[in-house]
Amino acid sequence: MERNITDGALLRLIRGRRSVRRFEGSPVPRQAITRILEAGRLAPSGSNRQPWCYIVIDDPAVKQAFRTECEWAEGVFHRNASVELTAWMKAHGITPQKPFLEEAPYLIAMFYKMREPYAVPSVWISIGFMLLQVEEEGLGTLTYTPAGARLNTILSVPAQFQLAAILPIGIPADHQRQNRRALSETVFTNQFGRPFEEGSGP
Amino acid sequence: MERNITDGALLRLIRGRRSVRRFEGSPVPRQAITRILEAGRLAPSGSNRQPWCYIVIDDPAVKQAFRTECEWAEGVFHRNASVELTAWMKAHGITPQKPFLEEAPYLIAMFYKMREPYAVPSVWISIGFMLLQVEEEGLGTLTYTPAGARLNTILSVPAQFQLAAILPIGIPADHQRQNRRALSETVFTNQFGRPFEEGSGP
Repeated sequence: MERNITDGALLRLIRGRRSVRRFEGSPVPRQAITRILEAGRLAPSGSNRQPWCYIVIDDPAVKQAFRTECEWAEGVFHRNASVELTAWMKAHGITPQKPFLEEAPYLIAMFYKMREPYAVPSVWISIGFMLLQVEEEGLGTLTYTPAGARLNTILSVPAQFQLAAILPIGIPADHQRQNRRALSETVFTNQFGRPFEEGSGP
Repeated sequence: MERNITDGALLRLIRGRRSVRRFEGSPVPRQAITRILEAGRLAPSGSNRQPWCYIVIDDPAVKQAFRTECEWAEGVFHRNASVELTAWMKAHGITPQKPFLEEAPYLIAMFYKMREPYAVPSVWISIGFMLLQVEEEGLGTLTYTPAGARLNTILSVPAQFQLAAILPIGIPADHQRQNRRALSETVFTNQFGRPFEEGSGP
């Protein structure tokens, strides 16, 4: 890919995307948020059950309640993390503090109905589509999964829904470039371990 | 969205995408497959662990072995399906027969390392990116999840990897349009049940 094959518009978008953990305070057009939600709504799902519910948060009081709850849960998570994960988080500057939950003009909390078929795969495809629409809008986000935080209560979300992730959305104030393994280390042909030939040309 | 807000290129792509269950026999450029794999490779993942392994299948003997194993597993699945699911499958013409596993010029089998953090969310974001790249290439696919099929053995994939899905990829011979719930039934603001206002303008 890096060598012989031409990217299209989507692949350029994917290649340019970065996780963003700090946001400018400046506002974001509501239409951009609507398009991001549309991207998620239109995703395919198991038996087309669309087992998701998205809650857009722009109320500072709700954001503050989110941050308080998430930072409490993060404290527990960090104290119990493996040595390897602790090292990784330290290297990437990840602490229990989550200022982006208040800094981002919008949060989208993504819930799924636990008992629907293929609910977890479905909601994560939908989140994948939204991540790309965020990039298309020239905005930034992070797939934030607050292990153990109890957010249903804050948003009055029924217990049949489980939180998948929170997407804080805003204008990026920084971003982190992360490398990926080469295609040759990720893809095989017909048998595990047998190299994939990329082909060449447009 | 349908009313007041202009789609960009990505949203047009998402809106146009359909699940495809029948494929033309005509060949697909290998570069298109490479770009689809690139889209998956470049996806974000928990702690950037990239807990996936993709196997491209273009060998007719491997495809045939896949089909035999999957149709056996599908037979079991259909016999045990709920009344509701059986009705849905019947209405959508879904039977234990999976001819697309041999008709599609390429299959991509997507595996993930079960023990990596956030392995399931990560592989499904990656699959979401690939679904869109398939559409960008003017090709069709289906997120096929053969419940209970034992495909690791056929591909010599180590037991630490679990199959997430198979994407058959080719030129569409048919497709199915499926409706989605309206945004107003899917999205709320600040509290469950409180309507989201879309905004208007470009």
